[in-house]
Amino acid sequence: MVNVGIIGGAGYTAGELLRILIWHPQANISFVQSTSHMGHPITDVHRDLLGDTDLEFSKADYSNTDVIFICSGHGKTKLFLEDNELPEAVKIIDLSTDFRPKTNTEGFVYGLPELNKDAIVSANRIANPGCFATCIELGLLPLAKSSKLKEEIHVNAITGSTGAGQNPTVTSHFSWKNNNVSVYKAFTHQHLAEITETVLQLQPNFEKEINFIPVRGNFSRGIMATMYTDCDWSLEEAVENYKKYYQDHPFVTISNQTPDVKQVVNTNKCVLYFEKHGSKLMIVSVIDNLLKGASGQAVQNMNLLFGMPEILGLGLKPIGF
Amino acid sequence: MVNVGIIGGAGYTAGELLRILIWHPQANISFVQSTSHMGHPITDVHRDLLGDTDLEFSKADYSNTDVIFICSGHGKTKLFLEDNELPEAVKIIDLSTDFRPKTNTEGFVYGLPELNKDAIVSANRIANPGCFATCIELGLLPLAKSSKLKEEIHVNAITGSTGAGQNPTVTSHFSWKNNNVSVYKAFTHQHLAEITETVLQLQPNFEKEINFIPVRGNFSRGIMATMYTDCDWSLEEAVENYKKYYQDHPFVTISNQTPDVKQVVNTNKCVLYFEKHGSKLMIVSVIDNLLKGASGQAVQNMNLLFGMPEILGLGLKPIGF
Amino acid sequence: MVNVGIIGGAGYTAGELLRILIWHPQANISFVQSTSHMGHPITDVHRDLLGDTDLEFSKADYSNTDVIFICSGHGKTKLFLEDNELPEAVKIIDLSTDFRPKTNTEGFVYGLPELNKDAIVSANRIANPGCFATCIELGLLPLAKSSKLKEEIHVNAITGSTGAGQNPTVTSHFSWKNNNVSVYKAFTHQHLAEITETVLQLQPNFEKEINFIPVRGNFSRGIMATMYTDCDWSLEEAVENYKKYYQDHPFVTISNQTPDVKQVVNTNKCVLYFEKHGSKLMIVSVIDNLLKGASGQAVQNMNLLFGMPEILGLGLKPIGF
Amino acid sequence: MVNVGIIGGAGYTAGELLRILIWHPQANISFVQSTSHMGHPITDVHRDLLGDTDLEFSKADYSNTDVIFICSGHGKTKLFLEDNELPEAVKIIDLSTDFRPKTNTEGFVYGLPELNKDAIVSANRIANPGCFATCIELGLLPLAKSSKLKEEIHVNAITGSTGAGQNPTVTSHFSWKNNNVSVYKAFTHQHLAEITETVLQLQPNFEKEINFIPVRGNFSRGIMATMYTDCDWSLEEAVENYKKYYQDHPFVTISNQTPDVKQVVNTNKCVLYFEKHGSKLMIVSVIDNLLKGASGQAVQNMNLLFGMPEILGLGLKPIGF
Repeated sequence: MVNVGIIGGAGYTAGELLRILIWHPQANISFVQSTSHMGHPITDVHRDLLGDTDLEFSKADYSNTDVIFICSGHGKTKLFLEDNELPEAVKIIDLSTDFRPKTNTEGFVYGLPELNKDAIVSANRIANPGCFATCIELGLLPLAKSSKLKEEIHVNAITGSTGAGQNPTVTSHFSWKNNNVSVYKAFTHQHLAEITETVLQLQPNFEKEINFIPVRGNFSRGIMATMYTDCDWSLEEAVENYKKYYQDHPFVTISNQTPDVKQVVNTNKCVLYFEKHGSKLMIVSVIDNLLKGASGQAVQNMNLLFGMPEILGLGLKPIGF
Repeated sequence: MVNVGIIGGAGYTAGELLRILIWHPQANISFVQSTSHMGHPITDVHRDLLGDTDLEFSKADYSNTDVIFICSGHGKTKLFLEDNELPEAVKIIDLSTDFRPKTNTEGFVYGLPELNKDAIVSANRIANPGCFATCIELGLLPLAKSSKLKEEIHVNAITGSTGAGQNPTVTSHFSWKNNNVSVYKAFTHQHLAEITETVLQLQPNFEKEINFIPVRGNFSRGIMATMYTDCDWSLEEAVENYKKYYQDHPFVTISNQTPDVKQVVNTNKCVLYFEKHGSKLMIVSVIDNLLKGASGQAVQNMNLLFGMPEILGLGLKPIGF
Repeated sequence: MVNVGIIGGAGYTAGELLRILIWHPQANISFVQSTSHMGHPITDVHRDLLGDTDLEFSKADYSNTDVIFICSGHGKTKLFLEDNELPEAVKIIDLSTDFRPKTNTEGFVYGLPELNKDAIVSANRIANPGCFATCIELGLLPLAKSSKLKEEIHVNAITGSTGAGQNPTVTSHFSWKNNNVSVYKAFTHQHLAEITETVLQLQPNFEKEINFIPVRGNFSRGIMATMYTDCDWSLEEAVENYKKYYQDHPFVTISNQTPDVKQVVNTNKCVLYFEKHGSKLMIVSVIDNLLKGASGQAVQNMNLLFGMPEILGLGLKPIGF
Repeated sequence: MVNVGIIGGAGYTAGELLRILIWHPQANISFVQSTSHMGHPITDVHRDLLGDTDLEFSKADYSNTDVIFICSGHGKTKLFLEDNELPEAVKIIDLSTDFRPKTNTEGFVYGLPELNKDAIVSANRIANPGCFATCIELGLLPLAKSSKLKEEIHVNAITGSTGAGQNPTVTSHFSWKNNNVSVYKAFTHQHLAEITETVLQLQPNFEKEINFIPVRGNFSRGIMATMYTDCDWSLEEAVENYKKYYQDHPFVTISNQTPDVKQVVNTNKCVLYFEKHGSKLMIVSVIDNLLKGASGQAVQNMNLLFGMPEILGLGLKPIGF
């Protein structure tokens, strides 16, 4: 049994961790820390867990804790680690961007199992990847691995609203967002650096642009990234190479039909699909942003850190509809 | 040409007034007051008006104004009238609850044209009805007029999110509200008093309960109220009496098919539908909460105040889908 | 291990069964019968299961089957049982209405565990309840058990679109249904008889009307039923009696905050909530129509039929958003 | 007054025409032809028009008709014109693809006023553009006019469900489409030829690819196209050139803020927005697919054909929410 603590337990990624961990056969939740909600039942915030747990938000207590998930928000993990002395033995899985950049890892391993499984297995600290980054990287890894990225890459990715967290804002207001879509941070999204670093890890000679246009979708969960680039693989070669790359990775599946976002909602899966048009290879990649794009992947990393089966507790019923 | 000013021009009902008035053949917008946005184009806030107008938010200026719409929010019209001296000649249409109660009209006429058209035509000040109140009252007026309300009335009404205004809150957060419904203020909604007073105006001996359960719907616009009560009219008599009651009211239509909310979205219409089950008469009433339930009705009242055709500027293209 | 067969495997309730059973620790899917799709992978139809299973639609084969779920649609189970001779030992869980009426059980036990657990445990054939019926009955059972139903009951229930199945129709067309709600089968819905029979089982002297207005909601999953009736229990007494009634039923939870439909989506739970207004007790009941309202409850019944823990395989991660 | 007939009056584009024409100050609807619904009120099909009109579906009658809109569906206009002899004087506005290709105009003028206004004014037959085509072409015309298209163009466009018409199908089924997005006809959509021909009309030397990925959005109305290509204009030059190009075109507006689809829903407007990233100019274009993308543009063409102001009857209240 792995004893788990959560730092920053009131946010969306923490809630999603709790939804998974409550039913995880080898996880025991030792504490759910929240400054603002201390002493209150976690179901006051994560109301869909009513009936599933009597846990309360509390202070952190590392005495009986094997691993903590840090869900405090971008920029706050560094501060947290400066302000708090953690026992050596406590492993860390951080869901923020703070230690993802290779220039600043401070011992954190970038936690994309489909890229770094060996390193993760022997790590103590994991920087859990971003949601867009995960979706797009899974679509590009086999190309980079085979050094097939020669030209610019064109990416358009539409995301569910939960990616923006639980803070009510103008662009998360239902009356505005309902039935609405819009572009944001085109060509400049903060995940671009993360994606580029990952590509370079596998194909150091890649020097073209990744053109990335993020779109706010009018749905709650999921990301669909549509990518294309010049590639001399035929469709069959592409499928074959992707299947080979992902053969030992249980959460990535190749589809021979156009996927839709809802196909993976409420699962930790990534479904990939390919078309070839002229010299261009098109790749569609879909994930659930809160699962494979955040908390599901974090649990996948936890499983690897503790030598458990990668899919333990992640056999999740899809929403379907 | 009627010169129109708007007080509190940045909110949802003000935006909806502007969408109508910009194309109204006999309205000229003389000012759109907003304290917080003064000096900025109104399209910074009401972005769908981009290309339709160059108006800017400004101070109020009554020198060339025939009528003002007050869109400041509930409780604020009283303060506004205490703090501001308006020229006698300026008529007022108030969209707040402040002067709706019969105990506190201060000269305001309750602006439901299907109830008070004669009084409105000769009024100077209009208290524009609430959205739920309008939808439910239009479903009950002919019964009250014929003194047919003998037993309890059961009302369930589901509303679009725009009824809650533009302030981002937990219950207006897209991630929560998307695909979600919930009950609120059951049996205690503030519009109950307004509805009861209206019923009593037509049937002073009504003394039973109106049981009203409001529901937050996961759509932007529209209200559907489903009501039933014991009634000795047959279905045919009910239809006949309702048609007769509304024969001179252009915005109320009787349907012989179950209506749906979207049937009236982006129009000033109310569609009514009836079924008889045993002794019970069921009435379904649908309106657009921002139009017949707020700004459309306000313009309807303006038309009446200035002797114009009741439907002028209100021949609105329905959304359909 | 229980060997499970599914008859009519291409529909919505069959898909939902598969989503549960694939991860159920004590279930082995021995066949998924479909006439129309025989020989094709089940993921051609239930596409969200891609990567989770290689099962194909096939003929039924009872040689190694402990229980079958019949998902063929209302009216078809009778025909199926007339046309097919099943081995004695094969238990049946039928998701249609065919054997729910007490006048026509033919040995089927009405499979609402919160009403009939003892009978279910020793049964061979289960008539799985309807979705509306489950949601409403769970809101009324403790009242009936205490013979507290003295007056008419008023029920308004809004349902997700999956309740209407997978056949594309005018009222399931996205362009129409999106952002739209409407009433249907008011006072006449086919589940009324089922609900009334259940109430009478616990309170044989109940003789008032149940007024039931079903509403088509613009969401995919979930039912919210809002009910009220005269009741001499105080709020505290109501809560206490409901808690007592459901103390041994793991899927029913009492909330002290207004529930929302999404709180239970993708779970087998029912959340109940109460308010008292004058002499009226209001009960809000929410379930996922495809789970507690159909396939989840069917698996709950399977667990009981085979002496397994009632919640086995039903510790489902909620969707949350 | 222009006397208008509609062929194929029961479909989505015909319904949208009716919503506009009923309130058009210079249009008189002389007939609404429908084979399948002849003799029935048009409100049986276009239910949101209840209360606005008593028109019935009928046979076509050209005796008192100045113009017909043909809404029969792609491929059917040719058959219609072969089978029916129309009076010379009757003008035609065809909403199908049949006569859009330059290789097969048979006297039809491609009805994009922002490209061909002079030709439209003197035409008798109009091939009304496609919805995607309109949205994308309006984003590219000024570039083509200035011969600035030197490299490949990358287009991702997401469309509302009404673009797929009213026929219920698997991909229009609410339970599937709700909260869902998917790619379709990538690189091969039938509008690509139309777009390419339009670009070539203004810039005959354009010889690069237009890479077009259409996406099915989970909303009813609207298209957002996001495009980029290499361009040596600065952002300021781009804005200036687009403003100049569209200065006499009342329905195209340049925004200096990221647009959202709902900003133009229920209007005949196109809003364009620009960003410059390195050598790439990004253009976002939003329209309502049923209005500027179909029936609104058809009325705009009618206005031009009959010498009326281009915006007559098209001053439509936006939906806003």
